[in-house]
Amino acid sequence: MKKLVGAAILGQSGGPTSVINASAAGVFLEALKQECITHVYGAKHGIKGILNEEFYDISKEDLKELELLKTTPSSMIGSVRYKLKDLAKDPSDYEKLLEVFKKYNIRYFFYNGGNDSMDTANKISKFFQDHDYECRVVGVPKTIDNDLYATDHCPGFGSAAKYVATTLMELYHDATVYDTKMCTIVEVMGRNAGWLTAAAQLAIEKGQGPDLMYLPEKVFDYDEFFEDIEKIINKKGKAIVVISEGVKDAEGKYIPEHFGNLFTDSFGHAQLGGAAEILAREVEKRFDIKVRGIEFSLMQRCAQHLASKVDVTEAYQAGVEAVKAAVNGATDVMIGFERVSNKPYKINYIHVPLHKVANTEKKVPLEWIKPHGKGMTQEYVEYVLPLIQGDCKAPLEDGLPRFAKLKKVLVKK
Amino acid sequence: MKKLVGAAILGQSGGPTSVINASAAGVFLEALKQECITHVYGAKHGIKGILNEEFYDISKEDLKELELLKTTPSSMIGSVRYKLKDLAKDPSDYEKLLEVFKKYNIRYFFYNGGNDSMDTANKISKFFQDHDYECRVVGVPKTIDNDLYATDHCPGFGSAAKYVATTLMELYHDATVYDTKMCTIVEVMGRNAGWLTAAAQLAIEKGQGPDLMYLPEKVFDYDEFFEDIEKIINKKGKAIVVISEGVKDAEGKYIPEHFGNLFTDSFGHAQLGGAAEILAREVEKRFDIKVRGIEFSLMQRCAQHLASKVDVTEAYQAGVEAVKAAVNGATDVMIGFERVSNKPYKINYIHVPLHKVANTEKKVPLEWIKPHGKGMTQEYVEYVLPLIQGDCKAPLEDGLPRFAKLKKVLVKK
Repeated sequence: MKKLVGAAILGQSGGPTSVINASAAGVFLEALKQECITHVYGAKHGIKGILNEEFYDISKEDLKELELLKTTPSSMIGSVRYKLKDLAKDPSDYEKLLEVFKKYNIRYFFYNGGNDSMDTANKISKFFQDHDYECRVVGVPKTIDNDLYATDHCPGFGSAAKYVATTLMELYHDATVYDTKMCTIVEVMGRNAGWLTAAAQLAIEKGQGPDLMYLPEKVFDYDEFFEDIEKIINKKGKAIVVISEGVKDAEGKYIPEHFGNLFTDSFGHAQLGGAAEILAREVEKRFDIKVRGIEFSLMQRCAQHLASKVDVTEAYQAGVEAVKAAVNGATDVMIGFERVSNKPYKINYIHVPLHKVANTEKKVPLEWIKPHGKGMTQEYVEYVLPLIQGDCKAPLEDGLPRFAKLKKVLVKK
Repeated sequence: MKKLVGAAILGQSGGPTSVINASAAGVFLEALKQECITHVYGAKHGIKGILNEEFYDISKEDLKELELLKTTPSSMIGSVRYKLKDLAKDPSDYEKLLEVFKKYNIRYFFYNGGNDSMDTANKISKFFQDHDYECRVVGVPKTIDNDLYATDHCPGFGSAAKYVATTLMELYHDATVYDTKMCTIVEVMGRNAGWLTAAAQLAIEKGQGPDLMYLPEKVFDYDEFFEDIEKIINKKGKAIVVISEGVKDAEGKYIPEHFGNLFTDSFGHAQLGGAAEILAREVEKRFDIKVRGIEFSLMQRCAQHLASKVDVTEAYQAGVEAVKAAVNGATDVMIGFERVSNKPYKINYIHVPLHKVANTEKKVPLEWIKPHGKGMTQEYVEYVLPLIQGDCKAPLEDGLPRFAKLKKVLVKK
């Protein structure tokens, strides 16, 4: 096969994780090695950077700093949440992209993101093919939500799961310290999938976890919830609850939606956001006990200091594999993980068609979720445990992380 | 000097820190070695446990588990926020304490806590002296707020400061990832002292910190705040703000007080929290941009996985020094730290009279705080930097922390 010669570009897209830059390191370092890749670019803010012809010349960066990307959280070259204009109605975005790709002879397009991003990459590839522009388009998965189809798991999830389990174990010690009645409600990200919330089970396995946990895969029943809280408080004096931001009641309403007005009334014009805080105020009102609502907020997705070594390694390797695959002729695929064995833990890197990943969501199997908020089955524990193993934090400088510093030299238009 | 022979008891009091158990390890392990100490007890929930004659027999614990206390967050034997009844009005609490101490021949009383706890210990000691009961009372400092008088700093503060600086650096990467306008407001604990909020300066020094920070030591000016936010958003598109839970406006009102009810705890202290979220909603309303309010909540005080080695070492040693001091005749003192030098960092363990610590608050020197929320001077950086050095996290088991497990054998009444 004749090698395709041209430039390569990477875009980072969607919400950050602790390891999205590890994938960037994999793409950049591997692409710099490949002879058929003439230039290595990093798009400033994903697809927007390509539309605006704003991209960084990665060959100008120090290799040491590119190595440090492996342990630098978030998206170093900038992320984006931009939906391309509908091709049927307005092809201008697609035409502009093709113009830019042609101008810089970009023949390798790597897009690191979740299902929306894979959809974007897929559409762009189809458009290029329809216009006879040869370009290899390979996706690199990324999401703490772990909801991508056709891959065993997603880079970013393992580190976030390690954060959730570790922090819940620490909170357990804090939240049970007094002999007064107390309820702690913790909110975890994950949109409509409960994979990350379910990591609370790891803390439960250690006897230092929540009493109740709620995933979006099951309908949230308020009556059952309040009854269970009452029982636990009466029995133990303390209740710890973990709730996914995405849980909904039988009417399909998210918690903040359900309590919207009530909450506004009791707090004047202070419209506080999260599900945990809203539930906390409800429990407080009903049982007259101290209740604390806690959101893991952005910390759960950027706490690089708690990154899992397995996650960082796989995220990096997914980037490397993406470049190798593209150079060897693959296109319209995302690098996925196929689990070969659990003991010892082993995966294969596989190619998943982009259209299979685009706009689908992989939920937690219902049979892995115990009834009445009582946690997860052993299947889930065996699934998640290998993914949180090992530490891989940034080197320390003055007791603080030394993250990568890029020069970010923009390519001249 | 004739050695005082009898039992020793430790109580843990007030809000948890990552290293309060390290001090417990110091007290327990040193007390178990001392010949004149006949029994070593741990009070269940501090002073309440003594009033209720509920204490654990520490000699029944495995030494390995007591060692693991060094890296176990929060208060393992239970904490308390209990204010003794006013002696002049109702001496029953004091009389009961004396009765219990006599019954178990407790001659050494170690109390680990903040200024309220030192006040409690001081009052008890005076009462015992007035009733000719010889008992050595030694305090061990503890507070993430770092607001104790007459000690250079407090155990718990260094680890919390490391959490604040590290997490802000990580959040910086997350909060600046999109090219859309965005404001992030982070709330840090510390009651009426800004020591912990000020640790944000360490992130600023690395170029990865907030744009604005507000300590309770300076009056919070809403107009100036909104003007500064507007300027920064117009200039950079992003603003990151760190605010202490304890900031007050010119009228002396906390931010939550301005918008709703302010609750008080059993000591009459305001229950703070929610300032960031409330400010976030205000900024959102005024500037119509995305704003996220983040509370570091309990994580900042129990994130043992980010504990500073200096802090853990000093907390442990403070416990050891307390026992040694008491055995050698000291009473009515708290173990304090005196800084000898910064390079190399060196401290002496000193004895501070309890009455000097009781109910006083040490604030951040005003001359260390730059005007207009612009951060801290170099003096603060030199002060705090040695305290966050080194890592000292719990050993891992299955990728998760292995915290101490105590048998908690209650002494028979």
